[in-house]
Amino acid sequence: MKKTSVRTRVLTGTAAVAALAAAGVGAVSASAETTETPASPAAVKVDAQNKNLAQSTGLTIDAATRAAQATLDAATKAGQHVSVAVVDRDGVTRVLLKGDGAGPQAPESAERKAFTAVSWNAPTSELAKRLAQAPNLKDIPGTLFLAGGAPVQSKGAPVAGIGVAGAPSGDLDEQFAQAGVAALAK
Amino acid sequence: MKKTSVRTRVLTGTAAVAALAAAGVGAVSASAETTETPASPAAVKVDAQNKNLAQSTGLTIDAATRAAQATLDAATKAGQHVSVAVVDRDGVTRVLLKGDGAGPQAPESAERKAFTAVSWNAPTSELAKRLAQAPNLKDIPGTLFLAGGAPVQSKGAPVAGIGVAGAPSGDLDEQFAQAGVAALAK
Amino acid sequence: MKKTSVRTRVLTGTAAVAALAAAGVGAVSASAETTETPASPAAVKVDAQNKNLAQSTGLTIDAATRAAQATLDAATKAGQHVSVAVVDRDGVTRVLLKGDGAGPQAPESAERKAFTAVSWNAPTSELAKRLAQAPNLKDIPGTLFLAGGAPVQSKGAPVAGIGVAGAPSGDLDEQFAQAGVAALAK
Amino acid sequence: MKKTSVRTRVLTGTAAVAALAAAGVGAVSASAETTETPASPAAVKVDAQNKNLAQSTGLTIDAATRAAQATLDAATKAGQHVSVAVVDRDGVTRVLLKGDGAGPQAPESAERKAFTAVSWNAPTSELAKRLAQAPNLKDIPGTLFLAGGAPVQSKGAPVAGIGVAGAPSGDLDEQFAQAGVAALAK
Amino acid sequence: MKKTSVRTRVLTGTAAVAALAAAGVGAVSASAETTETPASPAAVKVDAQNKNLAQSTGLTIDAATRAAQATLDAATKAGQHVSVAVVDRDGVTRVLLKGDGAGPQAPESAERKAFTAVSWNAPTSELAKRLAQAPNLKDIPGTLFLAGGAPVQSKGAPVAGIGVAGAPSGDLDEQFAQAGVAALAK
Amino acid sequence: MKKTSVRTRVLTGTAAVAALAAAGVGAVSASAETTETPASPAAVKVDAQNKNLAQSTGLTIDAATRAAQATLDAATKAGQHVSVAVVDRDGVTRVLLKGDGAGPQAPESAERKAFTAVSWNAPTSELAKRLAQAPNLKDIPGTLFLAGGAPVQSKGAPVAGIGVAGAPSGDLDEQFAQAGVAALAK
Amino acid sequence: MKKTSVRTRVLTGTAAVAALAAAGVGAVSASAETTETPASPAAVKVDAQNKNLAQSTGLTIDAATRAAQATLDAATKAGQHVSVAVVDRDGVTRVLLKGDGAGPQAPESAERKAFTAVSWNAPTSELAKRLAQAPNLKDIPGTLFLAGGAPVQSKGAPVAGIGVAGAPSGDLDEQFAQAGVAALAK
Amino acid sequence: MKKTSVRTRVLTGTAAVAALAAAGVGAVSASAETTETPASPAAVKVDAQNKNLAQSTGLTIDAATRAAQATLDAATKAGQHVSVAVVDRDGVTRVLLKGDGAGPQAPESAERKAFTAVSWNAPTSELAKRLAQAPNLKDIPGTLFLAGGAPVQSKGAPVAGIGVAGAPSGDLDEQFAQAGVAALAK
Repeated sequence: MKKTSVRTRVLTGTAAVAALAAAGVGAVSASAETTETPASPAAVKVDAQNKNLAQSTGLTIDAATRAAQATLDAATKAGQHVSVAVVDRDGVTRVLLKGDGAGPQAPESAERKAFTAVSWNAPTSELAKRLAQAPNLKDIPGTLFLAGGAPVQSKGAPVAGIGVAGAPSGDLDEQFAQAGVAALAK
Repeated sequence: MKKTSVRTRVLTGTAAVAALAAAGVGAVSASAETTETPASPAAVKVDAQNKNLAQSTGLTIDAATRAAQATLDAATKAGQHVSVAVVDRDGVTRVLLKGDGAGPQAPESAERKAFTAVSWNAPTSELAKRLAQAPNLKDIPGTLFLAGGAPVQSKGAPVAGIGVAGAPSGDLDEQFAQAGVAALAK
Repeated sequence: MKKTSVRTRVLTGTAAVAALAAAGVGAVSASAETTETPASPAAVKVDAQNKNLAQSTGLTIDAATRAAQATLDAATKAGQHVSVAVVDRDGVTRVLLKGDGAGPQAPESAERKAFTAVSWNAPTSELAKRLAQAPNLKDIPGTLFLAGGAPVQSKGAPVAGIGVAGAPSGDLDEQFAQAGVAALAK
Repeated sequence: MKKTSVRTRVLTGTAAVAALAAAGVGAVSASAETTETPASPAAVKVDAQNKNLAQSTGLTIDAATRAAQATLDAATKAGQHVSVAVVDRDGVTRVLLKGDGAGPQAPESAERKAFTAVSWNAPTSELAKRLAQAPNLKDIPGTLFLAGGAPVQSKGAPVAGIGVAGAPSGDLDEQFAQAGVAALAK
Repeated sequence: MKKTSVRTRVLTGTAAVAALAAAGVGAVSASAETTETPASPAAVKVDAQNKNLAQSTGLTIDAATRAAQATLDAATKAGQHVSVAVVDRDGVTRVLLKGDGAGPQAPESAERKAFTAVSWNAPTSELAKRLAQAPNLKDIPGTLFLAGGAPVQSKGAPVAGIGVAGAPSGDLDEQFAQAGVAALAK
Repeated sequence: MKKTSVRTRVLTGTAAVAALAAAGVGAVSASAETTETPASPAAVKVDAQNKNLAQSTGLTIDAATRAAQATLDAATKAGQHVSVAVVDRDGVTRVLLKGDGAGPQAPESAERKAFTAVSWNAPTSELAKRLAQAPNLKDIPGTLFLAGGAPVQSKGAPVAGIGVAGAPSGDLDEQFAQAGVAALAK
Repeated sequence: MKKTSVRTRVLTGTAAVAALAAAGVGAVSASAETTETPASPAAVKVDAQNKNLAQSTGLTIDAATRAAQATLDAATKAGQHVSVAVVDRDGVTRVLLKGDGAGPQAPESAERKAFTAVSWNAPTSELAKRLAQAPNLKDIPGTLFLAGGAPVQSKGAPVAGIGVAGAPSGDLDEQFAQAGVAALAK
Repeated sequence: MKKTSVRTRVLTGTAAVAALAAAGVGAVSASAETTETPASPAAVKVDAQNKNLAQSTGLTIDAATRAAQATLDAATKAGQHVSVAVVDRDGVTRVLLKGDGAGPQAPESAERKAFTAVSWNAPTSELAKRLAQAPNLKDIPGTLFLAGGAPVQSKGAPVAGIGVAGAPSGDLDEQFAQAGVAALAK
């Protein structure tokens, strides 16, 4: 049965990626083969021996959209007007929602919180505390050390980040982001 | 035996990704499970049901470095001074080499050629020809429609792009890029 | 009496808006009142006489999300992997979806197509034809004159733009964008 | 009758807007109808059911210009040389004046103060105090937490921001911005 | 009498700047003296011998605002919705107006047209024709070779540029810009 | 005799600009006339009534180059390797020198110090102290609150800024900048 | 006599660099004379008297690649996933490696640490301490004052910088960077 | 034996560069050995075996300034108002002069022409002709394919580029740039 075999397959791969996952990163290694039918006649091909390829895990767009929607719904339910961003492990935006009435500062703020959460695999509320020891962390381009970002994890490794901005406090923002992550578990 | 089992495993997944690969993109879908031990106590977790997660294939840094080095070696052997870039499926630079004597325009040019090749899964020499039909393609941010970029494919889908700049002609640049791709098959 | 006349004026304004709508812009004039309870004691208030305020029409985030989802669904159904953007009348992104397997060039390309469509209140496939007369139009920052963008109109005026990028042709992209617009009429 | 129903509908909308305004945002919800005569034959139309459309309130260009001029006049009267910016609820500049003798840092500084004031619906002098609790707020792109920005409100919601820069102190700058807001009440 | 003496003074300087003005640039040379009362005790002073200083001519903010308003009025009268920019000889924006209903592409387009007109001291409709001989002129950063920009001249030298964007054609845009320039002569 | 008459002319203008100079800005008001011979037949002309035009004072390129060279010489004499920037009242770079052995961070640092000095008409060593009262001043785009920038003044108003970067301390940098300003008095 | 001895010295070096010079690029230890065979007939030539030319020292791409690889190996050995950058004395990236599993913030962070280390010729861990005296140093564009950057020196002068980012602490990052520098001494 | 002869050669050069090296910067003709006295105790050192280091040739700041001044003088003599840029082999600006009356578009245009000339080691008037074969060359970031740029060569290799912008034609601009190059031969 397909679903089972796929899960089994991945479990098989789990051993190989255990050390990696423990290191807190999401790029799990696996292998694949070359194909005999490249898309373009002129395209060169990689002889995909196992040493060449790795796989990284991310959310499907369906999951990312569902998480973003759940995040926005939580904010709306609380009477807040926010923007929501879901970024992948590479920090690339998969979903961006600028909610009704969200301010102009909200979208990029949300993206940066999501970027920060996935980069360090921790909620931005916690990361902001780390600035006490390393205040210049916040000078790293693309980051924002304000509560409101939450990592999405698979096997402990970050596979996405959800960021929220626009509520009166970052703690509220982060509560909505966590609602979005929680929606993925349903 | 490891290699066989891995290949088998991936072949099992092949059916599922066949349509996707035919569409010329590299994000193959697979599944994974949640972990009980998140990196951070406060971090929310995703209940990683199969519907949530997908996997994408890319080069290991070892493979990317090897390809970049082979590309540069081919240029050096031909007496050319170039820059070489290897980008992943997301267009993110994995390896950048600014060779001895390469001009200041070369690094970003190489990155853009690699970006363009992986975006359309075709050598940039071919893509440049498409401008006859769609001249404004070249206005898409991040692209450069000059020969010198080559896609790295796995199962026909792009998993990386190699870009070269600095030789007197783009055709020479692309020849070196193809040498880099070929090195992955050895 | 002033307030009444103002209300009348707005109704009258509907007629006036007609010319405006015909001119292809969406900022319809209306009125509002001042409030006695500003959010912040220190905040200065505008004595919102009718002469000061105008209203502009846009999509709700629910509508924008629905349109984006319908657009992506149309692409998926056609076996294409795309990014979708919905921007408002000000060109600000309301929804961005980077679909599974969409290339790295797709999100910004989609945003620019949407921006272009809402700016000129026309599909980008048509706008691209205008370059025959005014080739430098495409040098305006933020634009992209490639098929794939469609305006969302209310009373003939643009209230949003939907942009799609990633399919093998811009015509396909635009077909999906039109499906997104059509979904708003259901 | 159509026109009447629209009026009724909008008035009805005022009540609905109350909760939203209390939330401190300016995108008031209202509705509109579709038109039978799109500007472009090829343009797709939105079936503008009420669920799709919202209206947001902003200043007319006449009001924005008047406010900007009043702001500049107040500065000139005080012997100060400043730049003035009026931005809308989306943070987009509607009016920018670089006064005689204003320094090169002034225009962008004025725009950022206006952006910040409209984003949080409060004078920037107050917002600067909030940094004591949330110091990283000032890392949000586009903002400037210096006195000199004032929100323009309608029903307590921000509809614009006025920013001033160039006087020896931010308090002076903000006094001029407030004069600009006050001019809208005359 | 003041006005007369001032005019006389400048006429005296006219001879010296004649060659310069003929060269089509606005930085006229003149002299000044050092002051004994620097603004800051620690500030170093320039011994302003005549060889050190030059003067350049520009519009007052009052004139620039008047021109911008006249430009916008001309557009409004014609039923067009545009943005207007007035830049000084250095290409710095002195006035920016985003008119009611102007599209999101209009403000930067207007600024670039104004920048282009003042840079070459010619209307952009004429400059666009020069591309037939020098097509790459349009690659110079900050420029836009579309009709809609007009220089403001004093003694034949450019002292400002007015740019307009948003009308259905650049010729219309430029007609409004010319109305703005003409308003300065009244 | 020319020099005398020119000085006399400017002195006549001094009264008119006194209030302005006291305000600490360099745009002195004067007037000019229109010309009968515009550079381009199609160019519209401004009827340069006195109300329209103002003049601003700046360094000639000869003076700016001399100041920059004197600045660099002072650094070289002290065994330091620096970059030097001279910007005008609008913050636009007139002269940039990247000295032998100056680090890659030096040129932009020098430009920003010069920009900051001319914007506030004070040495950046003094401006850095003001951060104790207004810490967010340093968030204004384009500025750098590090010693090494000095204003060039005429009649107490800033007409240029000199910035230096690269020495082991900002105080050394500023000493060189002051040498550059002093060279203008010789 | 000085001029002669210098020319002799450089001529001695000419043989070694002949192959490189023949390749038509400038990263060559060259001499004080012009060449009779310019690459392009129309190219103007510099009469390279000794006063005109200076030479700067940098890493070969082979050395830079070796150092980067050693840096990455040290991180991998320690179970860390990082990005590595090697920049030259001008701050230009010669090698960039984004290691497997490195976060999206890592590459630019690594480049900035390398840039900072080579700019001040000191490890960034030391430079970060200097902020206690000069806190605004960190506002210089391109810099990052976080441990993880190390200069590569020749005769005490900086010839390159190595930057690392991605480990849980900057001290770890810098330990890997130092391993990269050490590899150059083997 | 090769290694020995090379070390001897470089040691011969050591005397000449001693003062420069003592100044702690890297633009020095240095040798293949490590130093015992690093600038910073904590700084790691490179064991500078010959395989690690390469040298690149550039203009001294004195030569670059002289060339820039000669370029500007040639323009002034011809009654033209231009900006002049001298960039090094890495495309980094060494000297920038914005001449009196030069337009706002001139400085960046001059820098890009210089960048283009040094990148391809040919005058930009010739490079512009190459676009007939490779029209997309001009899309490479940082370039400008307009006459006005000239390479400075040593032994046929480019060591700098001079760019000019502001004259009525690019041919005039390039004539001035050539005068600047010629001045280096005097």
